[in-house]
Amino acid sequence: MVSSYFKRLLLDLGISEERIEMLEGKGGIVEDEFEGIKYLRFKDSAGNLRRGTVVFDHHNIILGFPHIKRVVQLEKGIKRVFKMKPFYVEEKIDGYNIRVAQIEGRVFAFTRGGFICPFTTERIEDFVNMEFFKDYPNLVLCGEMAGPESPYLVEGPPHIKEDIQFFLFDIQEKKTGKSISVKDRIKMAEEYGIPSVEVFGMYNISKIDELRQLIEELSTQRREGIVMKSPDMKKIIKYVTPYANINDIRIGARVFFELPHGYFMQRIKRLAFYLAEEKIRDADFERYATALGKALLEPFVESIWDVGGGEEIAEMFTVRVKHIETAYKMVSHFERLGLKIHIEDIEETSNEYWKITFKRVYPEATREIRELWNGHAFVD
Amino acid sequence: MVSSYFKRLLLDLGISEERIEMLEGKGGIVEDEFEGIKYLRFKDSAGNLRRGTVVFDHHNIILGFPHIKRVVQLEKGIKRVFKMKPFYVEEKIDGYNIRVAQIEGRVFAFTRGGFICPFTTERIEDFVNMEFFKDYPNLVLCGEMAGPESPYLVEGPPHIKEDIQFFLFDIQEKKTGKSISVKDRIKMAEEYGIPSVEVFGMYNISKIDELRQLIEELSTQRREGIVMKSPDMKKIIKYVTPYANINDIRIGARVFFELPHGYFMQRIKRLAFYLAEEKIRDADFERYATALGKALLEPFVESIWDVGGGEEIAEMFTVRVKHIETAYKMVSHFERLGLKIHIEDIEETSNEYWKITFKRVYPEATREIRELWNGHAFVD
Repeated sequence: MVSSYFKRLLLDLGISEERIEMLEGKGGIVEDEFEGIKYLRFKDSAGNLRRGTVVFDHHNIILGFPHIKRVVQLEKGIKRVFKMKPFYVEEKIDGYNIRVAQIEGRVFAFTRGGFICPFTTERIEDFVNMEFFKDYPNLVLCGEMAGPESPYLVEGPPHIKEDIQFFLFDIQEKKTGKSISVKDRIKMAEEYGIPSVEVFGMYNISKIDELRQLIEELSTQRREGIVMKSPDMKKIIKYVTPYANINDIRIGARVFFELPHGYFMQRIKRLAFYLAEEKIRDADFERYATALGKALLEPFVESIWDVGGGEEIAEMFTVRVKHIETAYKMVSHFERLGLKIHIEDIEETSNEYWKITFKRVYPEATREIRELWNGHAFVD
Repeated sequence: MVSSYFKRLLLDLGISEERIEMLEGKGGIVEDEFEGIKYLRFKDSAGNLRRGTVVFDHHNIILGFPHIKRVVQLEKGIKRVFKMKPFYVEEKIDGYNIRVAQIEGRVFAFTRGGFICPFTTERIEDFVNMEFFKDYPNLVLCGEMAGPESPYLVEGPPHIKEDIQFFLFDIQEKKTGKSISVKDRIKMAEEYGIPSVEVFGMYNISKIDELRQLIEELSTQRREGIVMKSPDMKKIIKYVTPYANINDIRIGARVFFELPHGYFMQRIKRLAFYLAEEKIRDADFERYATALGKALLEPFVESIWDVGGGEEIAEMFTVRVKHIETAYKMVSHFERLGLKIHIEDIEETSNEYWKITFKRVYPEATREIRELWNGHAFVD
């Protein structure tokens, strides 16, 4: 149920009563609560309130983070989007998207879906200088949380050796969701010491060979890819490395039945376009084919053997928190999302943190494998 | 529109008026016509009238061919389905399913979907002794048409060197769709000289090692797999070779965007279960991984290069017909199904046949590749 307070607020924002009723009816808007603070979360978009938008009051509206468009043909994608104009190239980091904003004096971290993340909200002050929000209460820091100890991802980028880190890649205004320019963002990040994604520099289509070289280097270093941005942030596209496509498949194949078919097929598509654009042939081509085949089959066959041996498909996650309660809040959050989580270990570290290890179990993927392994006959 | 004749017929068969209206409304039953003969085709199932059922009159009802269940764990699948009991093992041939029946003195060949296939209907007398239908007008011959010159499949089994052949695997009664026993089918086929699928013999679970050996041999010979049947035809399951899974992927990857994701993912699943059951490891495992990766990537990258070079994605088919009209009827049939077909070549052979080469073009797959290759930026 959405309270009359939020309904009135949406009316004031110009959303019609019918639209509000409709959104509420199909669960497109949901009222949530975090430590006593109520907020409205948009599971669907409505007008310019993008999916993932979070509304507290007339002013405190954190717009959903927009989906960045992808190209699978680097050269023609750049030509088509940027023409001859220059663009920034920044690292695309493999983590989870977070928006950080101050609401009534407290700083919260929002997930892509518009939930307040208990873990990131607790840890964000370790990475972001809170002075920023004193000076700019109207701005939202958008960035990626990445590292080997993340509650959402089984793996982090290899160059992050422990824990998790924040990487700023966008600063947006509350309510409008308008991004400030790349230059201003970089300046602000420097001024406040906010860690940011690596900026590889300004490029334009004439530097396509250097850009290809960069993609090769990132791929070799097992990094995810790049995001290309016009200086005014009006045009943004992403491109991922062949490494990332294969690695995502490898991670996904472990929980094969948990993921939509598209998860795998999209990445195979991206890899095929990379091979086509780079004219990869012969032994190099075979190397990619083998890597793809292994990424699909090895973890999947391991899972079948595990289930055949009586185990459940599961993934382990470790996070560092200051308060054990944060870990339990995280578990509650996951349980509300329908996930099956067990805390496996709680360990005090030498510094101010607790190291929490939890297991996410995949009952559906386990059941599916078990049935097939037990000889279930099916029509497909 | 379904005529009152067929509506009354369905009523007589015990289908309620509401059900008939409903089926007609959603296109679950469609009235079709072939050379002046009207028939009703079931696109959905209704009661025991399975999908693909064809109805001419009260007696001439050819039931849809039932979907054979699949197992991906051979040993446990057999245990579960057949327990300790014996079963026949027959070859599963990679072709298209056809039901052959005599209606008012003429013999027709029906596709899985319940269409009368002009090509197979013309050619069936080359393979099947028509005396059979004189003696058994009430029986339906169910079999696979397979070979390098097929209107539906780009490839045939390697041991069929030219043209196409018919392989009987089931004989069913009209109206009930009841199968005769395997023994009776084999006897009848011998009596009338009707070519049949290879029967590898009777097995039971104690012969699992021989069966595994058979699968290995079939896979090495690039054959599709086996169908296991209880002598009374009450229990039937199929199992395919790793070769067939990879080969299907290779054929499909050429028209990647034309196929549902499940086409590829189901075959990857089957392959993974084979590797798990056979405990394939190390170099052998890598060989399969490379084959899978190549099957996915090579034809797909070739297609991207073709489209990049201005070509359209297309497949070529060759068929042998006695009358050129048959080829044109085939093209009309495909066009009604929404396919884009061009006849490329018509050649008179030394015997009584015309060799027709036609091209199936895939405009959607071509458009999708062209857009991506041209740098289209998209949200996925």
